[in-house]
Amino acid sequence: MDNTGYCGESFNSLQSGTSDEDMVEIAGATLDISSTDDVPPLDRDYGSGGSYGVGDVPNGVPKLMDLLDEPVPGVGTYEDFNTIDWVREKSKDRDRHREIATKSKESTLALMKSISDAFSGWLLMLLVGLMAGALAGGIDISAHWMTDLKEGVCLNGFWFNHEHCCWNSNETTFQERDKCPNWKSWAELIVGTNDGPFAYIMNYLMYVCWALLFSFLAVSLVRAFAPYACGSGIPEIKTILSGFIIRGYLGKWTLMIKTITLVLAVSSGLSLGKEGPLVHVACCCGNILCHLFTKYRRNEAKRREVLSAAAAVGVSVAFGAPIGGVLFSLEEVSYYFPLKTLWRSFFAALVAAFTLRSINPFGNSRLVLFYVEFHSPWHLLELIPFVLLGIFGGIWGAFFIRANIAWCRRRKTTRLGMIRNLVFTLAIFCTVVSCGFLQVPSGLFIPSMAVGAIAGRLLGVGMEQLAYYHHDWVIFRGWCSPGADCITPGLYAMVGATACLGGVTRMTVSLVVIMFELTGGLEYIVPLMAATMTSKWVADALGREGIYEAHIRLNGYPFLESKEEFSHKTLAMDVMRPRRSDPPLSVITQDGMSVEEVESLIAETSYSGFPVVVSPESQRLVGFVQRRDLVISIENARQRQEGVVSASRIFFTEYTPPQPPNSPPPLKLRGIMDLSPFTVTDHTAMDIVVDIFRKLGLRQCLVTHNGRLLGIITKKDILKHMAQMANRDPDSILFN
Amino acid sequence: MDNTGYCGESFNSLQSGTSDEDMVEIAGATLDISSTDDVPPLDRDYGSGGSYGVGDVPNGVPKLMDLLDEPVPGVGTYEDFNTIDWVREKSKDRDRHREIATKSKESTLALMKSISDAFSGWLLMLLVGLMAGALAGGIDISAHWMTDLKEGVCLNGFWFNHEHCCWNSNETTFQERDKCPNWKSWAELIVGTNDGPFAYIMNYLMYVCWALLFSFLAVSLVRAFAPYACGSGIPEIKTILSGFIIRGYLGKWTLMIKTITLVLAVSSGLSLGKEGPLVHVACCCGNILCHLFTKYRRNEAKRREVLSAAAAVGVSVAFGAPIGGVLFSLEEVSYYFPLKTLWRSFFAALVAAFTLRSINPFGNSRLVLFYVEFHSPWHLLELIPFVLLGIFGGIWGAFFIRANIAWCRRRKTTRLGMIRNLVFTLAIFCTVVSCGFLQVPSGLFIPSMAVGAIAGRLLGVGMEQLAYYHHDWVIFRGWCSPGADCITPGLYAMVGATACLGGVTRMTVSLVVIMFELTGGLEYIVPLMAATMTSKWVADALGREGIYEAHIRLNGYPFLESKEEFSHKTLAMDVMRPRRSDPPLSVITQDGMSVEEVESLIAETSYSGFPVVVSPESQRLVGFVQRRDLVISIENARQRQEGVVSASRIFFTEYTPPQPPNSPPPLKLRGIMDLSPFTVTDHTAMDIVVDIFRKLGLRQCLVTHNGRLLGIITKKDILKHMAQMANRDPDSILFN
Repeated sequence: MDNTGYCGESFNSLQSGTSDEDMVEIAGATLDISSTDDVPPLDRDYGSGGSYGVGDVPNGVPKLMDLLDEPVPGVGTYEDFNTIDWVREKSKDRDRHREIATKSKESTLALMKSISDAFSGWLLMLLVGLMAGALAGGIDISAHWMTDLKEGVCLNGFWFNHEHCCWNSNETTFQERDKCPNWKSWAELIVGTNDGPFAYIMNYLMYVCWALLFSFLAVSLVRAFAPYACGSGIPEIKTILSGFIIRGYLGKWTLMIKTITLVLAVSSGLSLGKEGPLVHVACCCGNILCHLFTKYRRNEAKRREVLSAAAAVGVSVAFGAPIGGVLFSLEEVSYYFPLKTLWRSFFAALVAAFTLRSINPFGNSRLVLFYVEFHSPWHLLELIPFVLLGIFGGIWGAFFIRANIAWCRRRKTTRLGMIRNLVFTLAIFCTVVSCGFLQVPSGLFIPSMAVGAIAGRLLGVGMEQLAYYHHDWVIFRGWCSPGADCITPGLYAMVGATACLGGVTRMTVSLVVIMFELTGGLEYIVPLMAATMTSKWVADALGREGIYEAHIRLNGYPFLESKEEFSHKTLAMDVMRPRRSDPPLSVITQDGMSVEEVESLIAETSYSGFPVVVSPESQRLVGFVQRRDLVISIENARQRQEGVVSASRIFFTEYTPPQPPNSPPPLKLRGIMDLSPFTVTDHTAMDIVVDIFRKLGLRQCLVTHNGRLLGIITKKDILKHMAQMANRDPDSILFN
Repeated sequence: MDNTGYCGESFNSLQSGTSDEDMVEIAGATLDISSTDDVPPLDRDYGSGGSYGVGDVPNGVPKLMDLLDEPVPGVGTYEDFNTIDWVREKSKDRDRHREIATKSKESTLALMKSISDAFSGWLLMLLVGLMAGALAGGIDISAHWMTDLKEGVCLNGFWFNHEHCCWNSNETTFQERDKCPNWKSWAELIVGTNDGPFAYIMNYLMYVCWALLFSFLAVSLVRAFAPYACGSGIPEIKTILSGFIIRGYLGKWTLMIKTITLVLAVSSGLSLGKEGPLVHVACCCGNILCHLFTKYRRNEAKRREVLSAAAAVGVSVAFGAPIGGVLFSLEEVSYYFPLKTLWRSFFAALVAAFTLRSINPFGNSRLVLFYVEFHSPWHLLELIPFVLLGIFGGIWGAFFIRANIAWCRRRKTTRLGMIRNLVFTLAIFCTVVSCGFLQVPSGLFIPSMAVGAIAGRLLGVGMEQLAYYHHDWVIFRGWCSPGADCITPGLYAMVGATACLGGVTRMTVSLVVIMFELTGGLEYIVPLMAATMTSKWVADALGREGIYEAHIRLNGYPFLESKEEFSHKTLAMDVMRPRRSDPPLSVITQDGMSVEEVESLIAETSYSGFPVVVSPESQRLVGFVQRRDLVISIENARQRQEGVVSASRIFFTEYTPPQPPNSPPPLKLRGIMDLSPFTVTDHTAMDIVVDIFRKLGLRQCLVTHNGRLLGIITKKDILKHMAQMANRDPDSILFN
């Protein structure tokens, strides 16, 4: 499996911020939930060892309190390759916010702190926009220079690209500008001339050598330093945004290597495109900058808000399309996207676009290389070829996804490294050679858009010829006068590219808006929409999944797709564990178990959490405790709490009954228990359960029947069930 | 209260589709939920009267079955001024979809039906777009004609407006075109001349008379035929989209009267604006067209998807901004907005915009009257005045909302009709007079934008003068050469209008995108964004609510705002009913109550539903039954089921135990019980509960403690609690 092979990362980004200090807050949050305003939480949650009834006020708060005041490091955090609990994270953030708001009334300093906290989100957005915009500008400039380096070198200084080299040249006409004396092609530099077949071959060889060198460097860097930097990264970002944890995936090493290799790959002429990777780069920026602000460093849910905005920033700088970027983030990658995030994403996307514009990498005050200027009108009848392009795009998209997935599956199963590398080199070579001849621009979710653009242009040129020679045909009558340019092949190319990209990614509104922002005119929205819609329908009919979803499934990530409806008629009781043949549900009783018993339960099972019940007979649910929290707490208590031994009893109750003399001191763990676990009845339809999981971002849900605990459903159970219903292998879901 | 005064509607639109036929599906859905695939639902849910144990298979399905097969009309529907249950509606739709999908494999006809069902959503969107676009075009043309009618009449035919009248005139120069001989001003027509003070006064008086006539007609029509047609309607549409039912609010009468009065109001010169009302008109179109498709007619949740799209259509035709319209619907009015709706809204908005364009009401192939053509650049330093405009807009917005709400509250409490009418007439007069002088174009969320535009233009002209006379000042140096036009006052007017509109409505992204689509250039996004952001911050600091939210609160609608965070530290047990001093929770036992007992429970309480428990002692929850369903079912059984009398026992259990001889036949009501009621524990933090209500669209939620039923929280309880926490009157929430 490829994922476990992901290593070599020294930067465990996603959770490195959870230090000891952090835990005060987390434990505090858990305590807060279990208390009302008028009663101090500790009095209610942790009674003393003294003897008093339910209604009594604890009169002695013994030394046990000290330990409980001090939070246990690690409680409330997540392990790598696990899913976060959105409800808990959001609740934690609201508690933090509430605390700051309450304190702000006490002093001016606290008020200032509260205001700075409120604006920290905007400041962070500004920084993300600036950093991503600057990086995108740097990438463009470097790639430009290195692309020119394949052809020649500037005598004024090797760091000038072709254009800058000839900036001050005396040749004033535009055509001659390229041929300034200071810019030497490799043939000129080495053999002294640029003419003749030998010089041509020389130049071509140098071109191929540089390209191979760049490709080799790019591949080696990724392999050696940051395996996470390979690919576009969008499937993983989608999964992370849905609540999964992949440490280091958005870390500083990934950012550094990705940026360098992106420049190398683009300038080598590889058909890789920089649009997808720029989203990854922007998300790395967002994640790294989160570390500057406590609010975002310590909360997985808040951090994902920033990452959603960063994804918008990535598209904004890749295409110069801030609105399209925001819609892309909303439609394609984000999971939890509140309206506040929409507004902030838009701000960050604009900042990034204008940062990039002021760097002006293309020297024409446009944000993108491929700005389209034509504004010629189109005729309603042209919708027929546009729809045809849509059909082509849909078929091509479905085919591309299948081929791509089949190839990746092969790569995952085949372990013959040498052969892979050889194949790989050949592929590079073919691409480079063809790029050298065809001069296909790199980028643009290549090859999807390139293929579509070629098909579109072919059709457009065909139509143009038809209209030129047969303008008397019925279909051309009335709008195509003889000799006039009534067909714009460029528009066909654009529509074709949109259709193919749509077929591959299944983007809809965002794709149309991105293309609209690229072309800068509302005129072509209808053709684009017709093609996108047809392409999506055709592609969906041939295979439900877009390329990102297909990759997510291939990698076995626990991603609960929000677009697909759960269409089966099963009930919660059909999906929950334990199944009929399984041993009964592993539960913890709130006051009856010793440390030893709980430890053996943990050792015997691998569940990530346990329901706490009143008694095994009644099966009445009290709460839910996470395995990780339980392990950490017991270990901590054994080490630091005097007298806690295997025979100590564990209490999850509000008040601890008096212990018999000579018995070891009890261990009180109500603080780590979730007092508000989600429950559904066994008769709840699974479509409703799936809806709840999606909308609330749950990790697990308990199942009851007539008020009695019956079983548990986790996100993984649901995904396995869905895989099974779709005749796929349920074991393809790898993570929790 | 104004709402109860809303009457005179003969079209009970929102639910007129729930006929007898409908109920087959609804009851079927309820049955389906309680069954798995392998067991026929009726076998499991409705046992016979025979004697068998829990594990036995029912061997006799007696005549009772006939009754149960036949669904009870009205079960599963809602009363007026009540909230729908989103989960139930969505589940119903999924059941319907599943049934069609299953059937589609059986025959070609069923397959065709399934395909037509899948495309019916798109067809509906197309129809909504066409209808709303055509209506908007019609409104524009009529208003244009009637506005000209205030000034004069065409001799060729009174139905020509000024421009069309002079279309074929011989005067070719643009300036002279207005003065064609066939167009006569009222003074020319009556006294034969257009010169001199008498003619001027004559013309002015006719202008005022027409304006008063139009206004009077508009007000009378609304009052007489469709009180729902008054106002912009956006607060009500927001509430309806959140799941509330106001019958007739989006009916054909409202549409008809609203369209006519909109034309009258716009052409009278009243500062009413047609943008808000166009959203209402489009939503009426959407709602009426829903009746063509079973899928949308019979499902409240599906219908609301269409209404969300229709709101986008309204903005699209009002501003010629399809993308802005979709974002407006997403950001401002919609509640449940899945990605599928995003794409369909965009389609409908585009269709509407292009329908309007082909009608071409303004004769310039632009969609809107106020297209801005200037593309002059702006300087970074100009952000300072733009931010100042934002501050002004925020203050003005907050002030406007307060004044508006105070005025509306006064109107609601004052009942002196005569005085109100007299006030009203004066107001009309003042507006008309001022409009006559100032020539402020009607529309544009007037007066917000007009005020902002005036303020902006004033500031802009001031800056222009400053730059002209003091171009040597430091701030102008470098970008403002002597004599050059370096300041565009029109841009200031636009920024000012945006700021004021933002202050009033608190729109963000959608506002910027609408303005961007209006002006057709990315150049001004940054100024617009700066002003919008400042305006929102300032306005939020002065008062949390936008104008729509304020009106919703004023009317006491049960609207759970999704933008505002619930920031209090209360638990579910603090909000649930019964309170400590209240009598215990009214529950129904699953097998222990007679018809009489249940009827007296219904008579004694006014709750909209009752939890069903195993026994009053255990308080273990089985399900939840709606009051309305219970009343209808018992009534129906008493009338149609032989032998059901007051002493009959009601069973909610799966199997009915054998009844003693001579006892009346039992009444089996498991079919109307919701077997999957939502529950939370009493320790759940209220912020989580509010989140659940918002995201899942619940009506009520049950509260348990250690597996035992403790109480209930309804949407109204939450809203009352929130009102209380904000020191508002909890009784201001009027509806369930």
